[in-house]
Amino acid sequence: MLERNIFENISPLDHRYSPGGEDFDLYPEFLSEKARIKYLAKVEAALVRVLSRRGLCTEEVADEVEKAAGEIIAEEVYEKEKVTKHDIRALVNCIQERVSREARPFVHFTATSYDIVDTANSLRYKEVTREFVVPCLLKLEQELMELALREKDTVQIGRTHGQHADPVTFGFMVAGYVSRMGNRIESIEKTSGQLKGKLSGAVGAYNASSLFFADPEEFEREFLTELGLEAAAHSTQIVEPEYLTDYIHSLVSCLGVLANFSDDMRHLQRTEIDEVSEYFTADQVGSSTMPHKRNPINYENVKSMWKEFMPRMITVYQDQISEHQRDLTNSASGRFVPEIIAGLLSVVNRLSKVCSRIRVNHANLEKNFNQSKEMIVAEPLYILLASYGHPDAHEKVRQLTLIAEKEGRVLRELINEDQELKPYLEQFNEKQRELLHNPEEYTGIAARKTEDIVSYWKKKLNLN
Amino acid sequence: MLERNIFENISPLDHRYSPGGEDFDLYPEFLSEKARIKYLAKVEAALVRVLSRRGLCTEEVADEVEKAAGEIIAEEVYEKEKVTKHDIRALVNCIQERVSREARPFVHFTATSYDIVDTANSLRYKEVTREFVVPCLLKLEQELMELALREKDTVQIGRTHGQHADPVTFGFMVAGYVSRMGNRIESIEKTSGQLKGKLSGAVGAYNASSLFFADPEEFEREFLTELGLEAAAHSTQIVEPEYLTDYIHSLVSCLGVLANFSDDMRHLQRTEIDEVSEYFTADQVGSSTMPHKRNPINYENVKSMWKEFMPRMITVYQDQISEHQRDLTNSASGRFVPEIIAGLLSVVNRLSKVCSRIRVNHANLEKNFNQSKEMIVAEPLYILLASYGHPDAHEKVRQLTLIAEKEGRVLRELINEDQELKPYLEQFNEKQRELLHNPEEYTGIAARKTEDIVSYWKKKLNLN
Amino acid sequence: MLERNIFENISPLDHRYSPGGEDFDLYPEFLSEKARIKYLAKVEAALVRVLSRRGLCTEEVADEVEKAAGEIIAEEVYEKEKVTKHDIRALVNCIQERVSREARPFVHFTATSYDIVDTANSLRYKEVTREFVVPCLLKLEQELMELALREKDTVQIGRTHGQHADPVTFGFMVAGYVSRMGNRIESIEKTSGQLKGKLSGAVGAYNASSLFFADPEEFEREFLTELGLEAAAHSTQIVEPEYLTDYIHSLVSCLGVLANFSDDMRHLQRTEIDEVSEYFTADQVGSSTMPHKRNPINYENVKSMWKEFMPRMITVYQDQISEHQRDLTNSASGRFVPEIIAGLLSVVNRLSKVCSRIRVNHANLEKNFNQSKEMIVAEPLYILLASYGHPDAHEKVRQLTLIAEKEGRVLRELINEDQELKPYLEQFNEKQRELLHNPEEYTGIAARKTEDIVSYWKKKLNLN
Amino acid sequence: MLERNIFENISPLDHRYSPGGEDFDLYPEFLSEKARIKYLAKVEAALVRVLSRRGLCTEEVADEVEKAAGEIIAEEVYEKEKVTKHDIRALVNCIQERVSREARPFVHFTATSYDIVDTANSLRYKEVTREFVVPCLLKLEQELMELALREKDTVQIGRTHGQHADPVTFGFMVAGYVSRMGNRIESIEKTSGQLKGKLSGAVGAYNASSLFFADPEEFEREFLTELGLEAAAHSTQIVEPEYLTDYIHSLVSCLGVLANFSDDMRHLQRTEIDEVSEYFTADQVGSSTMPHKRNPINYENVKSMWKEFMPRMITVYQDQISEHQRDLTNSASGRFVPEIIAGLLSVVNRLSKVCSRIRVNHANLEKNFNQSKEMIVAEPLYILLASYGHPDAHEKVRQLTLIAEKEGRVLRELINEDQELKPYLEQFNEKQRELLHNPEEYTGIAARKTEDIVSYWKKKLNLN
Repeated sequence: MLERNIFENISPLDHRYSPGGEDFDLYPEFLSEKARIKYLAKVEAALVRVLSRRGLCTEEVADEVEKAAGEIIAEEVYEKEKVTKHDIRALVNCIQERVSREARPFVHFTATSYDIVDTANSLRYKEVTREFVVPCLLKLEQELMELALREKDTVQIGRTHGQHADPVTFGFMVAGYVSRMGNRIESIEKTSGQLKGKLSGAVGAYNASSLFFADPEEFEREFLTELGLEAAAHSTQIVEPEYLTDYIHSLVSCLGVLANFSDDMRHLQRTEIDEVSEYFTADQVGSSTMPHKRNPINYENVKSMWKEFMPRMITVYQDQISEHQRDLTNSASGRFVPEIIAGLLSVVNRLSKVCSRIRVNHANLEKNFNQSKEMIVAEPLYILLASYGHPDAHEKVRQLTLIAEKEGRVLRELINEDQELKPYLEQFNEKQRELLHNPEEYTGIAARKTEDIVSYWKKKLNLN
Repeated sequence: MLERNIFENISPLDHRYSPGGEDFDLYPEFLSEKARIKYLAKVEAALVRVLSRRGLCTEEVADEVEKAAGEIIAEEVYEKEKVTKHDIRALVNCIQERVSREARPFVHFTATSYDIVDTANSLRYKEVTREFVVPCLLKLEQELMELALREKDTVQIGRTHGQHADPVTFGFMVAGYVSRMGNRIESIEKTSGQLKGKLSGAVGAYNASSLFFADPEEFEREFLTELGLEAAAHSTQIVEPEYLTDYIHSLVSCLGVLANFSDDMRHLQRTEIDEVSEYFTADQVGSSTMPHKRNPINYENVKSMWKEFMPRMITVYQDQISEHQRDLTNSASGRFVPEIIAGLLSVVNRLSKVCSRIRVNHANLEKNFNQSKEMIVAEPLYILLASYGHPDAHEKVRQLTLIAEKEGRVLRELINEDQELKPYLEQFNEKQRELLHNPEEYTGIAARKTEDIVSYWKKKLNLN
Repeated sequence: MLERNIFENISPLDHRYSPGGEDFDLYPEFLSEKARIKYLAKVEAALVRVLSRRGLCTEEVADEVEKAAGEIIAEEVYEKEKVTKHDIRALVNCIQERVSREARPFVHFTATSYDIVDTANSLRYKEVTREFVVPCLLKLEQELMELALREKDTVQIGRTHGQHADPVTFGFMVAGYVSRMGNRIESIEKTSGQLKGKLSGAVGAYNASSLFFADPEEFEREFLTELGLEAAAHSTQIVEPEYLTDYIHSLVSCLGVLANFSDDMRHLQRTEIDEVSEYFTADQVGSSTMPHKRNPINYENVKSMWKEFMPRMITVYQDQISEHQRDLTNSASGRFVPEIIAGLLSVVNRLSKVCSRIRVNHANLEKNFNQSKEMIVAEPLYILLASYGHPDAHEKVRQLTLIAEKEGRVLRELINEDQELKPYLEQFNEKQRELLHNPEEYTGIAARKTEDIVSYWKKKLNLN
Repeated sequence: MLERNIFENISPLDHRYSPGGEDFDLYPEFLSEKARIKYLAKVEAALVRVLSRRGLCTEEVADEVEKAAGEIIAEEVYEKEKVTKHDIRALVNCIQERVSREARPFVHFTATSYDIVDTANSLRYKEVTREFVVPCLLKLEQELMELALREKDTVQIGRTHGQHADPVTFGFMVAGYVSRMGNRIESIEKTSGQLKGKLSGAVGAYNASSLFFADPEEFEREFLTELGLEAAAHSTQIVEPEYLTDYIHSLVSCLGVLANFSDDMRHLQRTEIDEVSEYFTADQVGSSTMPHKRNPINYENVKSMWKEFMPRMITVYQDQISEHQRDLTNSASGRFVPEIIAGLLSVVNRLSKVCSRIRVNHANLEKNFNQSKEMIVAEPLYILLASYGHPDAHEKVRQLTLIAEKEGRVLRELINEDQELKPYLEQFNEKQRELLHNPEEYTGIAARKTEDIVSYWKKKLNLN
């Protein structure tokens, strides 16, 4: 029963949307139940190590426990839990059975279960973030940076409300996501770095440890330093929940940025727009019945994963509330936290692959731009007219666009014919007059800003 | 890689909170990926069966396809999907490879992927509901009914705002959950029965099937009848999402009722209240550090699972929105729907076991009631005074309770001493006067109502 | 302070998104605080009316109380609440002060606050649903029906994944929303009709009323019948929350249908697609800086309101949980329920107006269809080839579409040139061969189905 | 119609749960629609001021516009919007009508609507946070600090899972909330300080402003500095949404801390526990039918408001997604953001008042502690036994507690009688032996830690 075909699993994370994609397997290391127990055992070992430093037990005892802890496997803990009905006591018993009579008393000494559980989870989330989440995000960030720079001068019609607006460049659009992702990567780094541990005992007042140490907080610090963590400013049976809440918020809001990017890419692949394409293999099928279809399935997947994982923030907010020195109603829900990390990783790795092979269709970008070329003139015209003193420039130009639309005429011609505008137009300088004829130059500082954003984040995130 | 230790899984549903508990294993049948593919293949077979009835292919072809479909396993479909990048086309190819050249064209004939996917999921959810969800809920409902009847006369102090209020009976309290659960069971039965299938093709207009059938809706009906389903009133590439939305709402709101019950039971186990106990085995450990603890871990688990799964309704509401004839942004999220069913089953099976062994502590019920016995008189006194014409009965009694509290006196004595009340009290009949001395009789129709509710739902749900 | 400029309000519902739009004002009637208090007073009056029928007080008393209740205004209740710190006691005191000494005792007789509150809210939500929500939805439904019928034959390219797929008709697309809205209207009617009242007292056991009535449930029934309601199957201090939960679910899921419709309409207004237009007045401004813009602001508003109100279902699910005979943690949140109704009404009235003036741009529909005309042939071709025995029709056609795309050729020509296909094509009958040349006929039964759906719902919803 | 009785409003924030409580009125300043428009006008004025500094217009023009902007009232903007159907254009027109022909062109010059809207909202939220949210939170924080210090030595039985666990002190428990609130106050200060503005035009590329300025970003900086803001690192038509998302997360997670505190206080007021009381006025009514009730209505209100406002984070996460250079689907939902601020303020002001008058019932704290006094010994006994080398101390003590419970005996006596334990007990030193007789001393460093936490946050938050 313990060995199982992955397709007998319920969760898509366990058979389909692997956080590591096809390339590697994160499960045993960080996000699986096996990993959870490995970290718990590691934390138990660290506790005895510090006890030995403090002289409560010998170094041999600490070595013995460390060795035993390193050998524990999930199966035996679960087997033991059937008797104790208590997971951490089961783990402690498993370790104790593997060590000498002398060492046994020091396993879990002065600790309550959640000293171990909260510390182990903070450590685990911190490490998976450092080892995988951030590196994977940086890889994607680099793909986006390259794309942004490559297309920094490619004119793209800007779209607000789905309507053609002023032009930008394709690279500038991508740079927006470079910026937002950079910001979220920093947020993830920061909040993961602030995840805390504890060794303050059953109700947080160091009741047990103060029997042995004059400064039990110092003892807690030593223990956590051993693991590379800091202590929560205050704890009850559990660490103050806001550290984890902030961390998950940073993950969920990062997923939101990726969902926005994917939505944009989906829409840019619409048949009528067709400005980008996902890479499509020769054997790939778009539809089981429409052989000609080429669907943006990867971007759709990202949006869909966001819909699945974003609402889980509600669970995290609910878990901020724990009665008195704690109730256990965050226990089951807390075990689902690794799924959120896995969901984000799955999405990031997918996007990395897709973005590295994205095709930008320059011909269509130009075609789409040209569709509104004539109308784009409306904005600079209105502003220039205003700058030369026209008191109602916006309304004047709006009226002309209505006429252009109604009579199917080109706005530029109407402008030139208009007697009222003449005195203002004559004041336009050369460059300004030119702009009315070459609206593709009306992209502001899109290219320069693209470069600036990429440079800024390259430096800030230590990328080359 | 395909065989894996369950502890290498990420989702707690795949290693810890099995929907079937320890007793049985639902995975291969309904909720796993294996089950998903089994149902998809079944639906593909049903399609060819109906084609043969309509004379488009021979019965032998239908037999061949049915046999092939029955043999398909998840692994081969996933292997094939690596090439096609399309899961249903992969399945279709797998089936086609197992059948004769003659049969091949009829596999998936006129269908689009989601004719198969939506139909298979509706069928799967409907069947798991009928086979497991409802029976498990009925088992729990029966446990509650027995408990309600057993304790229908056991006086319990009612609590509003956590404050002692008027008395009820323990059974009456439980009957409230019998009623609410009965109502949700009916809702689950109804909404699962309304899950629909479709065979209207890629955009819902029966484009392909109308090439062969004058009445393609009749063809769709035959196909769905073969599977015990009905057709959606309208479909695009997908079935109208509201059927599924209603079904998940019924599950999620049922989970809410169970969470409320568990919250009540948790609080009734508080040390100061101690009116019920979870069964505790002799070897069970309450705390890894406090050997004397007896925690309400099962009820805490239920509340926690509700916090995990309730917010997923947001995903379902978001999946109501699909652009035009559909986008695929409900595809990944839709694959997580079985988790909600699994979560509910896990909780229901846990509660069934716990409720069958619940201990009601009669001595503490009495002790708690006695704590407020004297104050309870306040309500009937006020109402009886009012009924005999006292114009400000509520305020009068409220003042007396303040005095009783302040002076540490018994309310009843103050009443008897009060000259203003005398003329009213003299009008009280024997029974009314008695009530003031025996507030434990002030339970209204609690016992009778308990019986009525249990009888009503026994009949309505066909239980004995 | 009580009279205030509406722009000093915080909630957009109170200054901008009026549920009644510009046309009428629902506030004083159903959704405001004033309405809340009016309904509470009405329920108090109904209670005394039934008491008089039962002979506990005279008819004159009931008349007196009814008159007094009808005169109560919100201000005085709030003024009184400053003293009592209890809203219902404040109301009761206000009524009592307006009636004779004889009548006073019978105001609120045997009732607890939530007998009044839950009953009044159920009544209020039921009535606003019957008087406004359903009629407004029916008005919108009729607009959609007319649009569907008007455009039932207008060919529109179907879109899945944002990619051109098989054709539908514009009317058929709209008919999908007619169907989904019809379904939600029925759900709203049903769930609002099931909202319940109660008169079972402070803890639900009829403690007080059973002092006076042998069958207090019969007394409750009389009281609720007076108001056109039924009693909850079980109540504590409050009505079982699932009735309200189901009702709000029906509202929220209806909003989801409208959001989906609006998303579709938004995208169909994209500059590159431009198949529909919102009505635009001559003076309307699209952008403060781009005078030529015409934005789909109404559909964007609907989507945005859905984002605001859909998540409130989480509040409703949380309010399913109330400790023991109830805690008050649903009191503040419950007061926000009218906002959800107001949000839906605001959206429905907006859409009604917009849909009545929607412009369908036939030329662009045709232009967009023509863009994919040649590729559409792929699906019927593959299916027809399969029907004539081609063993790998899907793959064959997929290959041809790749060639067509790569070489910029027309698929139809490639088909005709292909030697392998020849023997199959020769078996095609006249109609089938024609279809390959006229893919605009490949709309299945779109038109007929549109008619059927409209007819079905016209009858079911009693519309003409 | 514009002047309205507040009870004709729908939202409870507009008639009942005023953010300012009864003491003051925030509406006109920051959170109302009036405030919104005031800020928009202020931002328009700042733009012209910077234009004048740059020499594009005279200082007189800037003065004129500033004066006009200061006079604009909401009514006239709404009146104008009926024509333009565009709120910002309406505002601009209103300003233009009040200024000279010469000044008109410079109103809104080079700006797009959301340059104004996003900048004004960031400014408004930043200022209301600085002026009200943080000060109100600090006031509450101080109330909690005083309470913590006052009760730092008051022994309270710790509760985990609702079960008596090790003792803490009442002050230590409160200190936990001092710590969590301090942390959230810092988070709110930080995230509000990071709210950004923009002046990058319709699609974020400074298209319009670069017509006039070589370094349009410098121009943007000047404009925002005028208002005390910084520019977003990148913007489209709108500011990157993550700044606002982080800010609302800080508010919502702060509300979670307050809800947890309120839940604890609610439960500590349970009749059976009764360790604290809300202040109750002499005239206050607890129940409309049970005159003796004293309900924790304020803490219940806080929990309820959390249930109402916490889920709105889902709206904020959804608003992270805006298509291309933006769609408008965050417009309506964005207008509800002030409600979240108002909800938090309402709760904080309520808690401040309640906490300043909270009553701690020392007698009941002692009574409750004594209930478990004897069992508490179990933990220190087990740990001390372990420290003296007992190999199975936890199991040994667990067995003794079972016997104590079963036989109704005192754990301490069983310990003394136990022969196996004798050799270990003899090693206990004086202090350790004493602890077994005085478990009320088993509070670890609760008192000291309370002082430390209060000192830390006093300093960090600049409180005295």
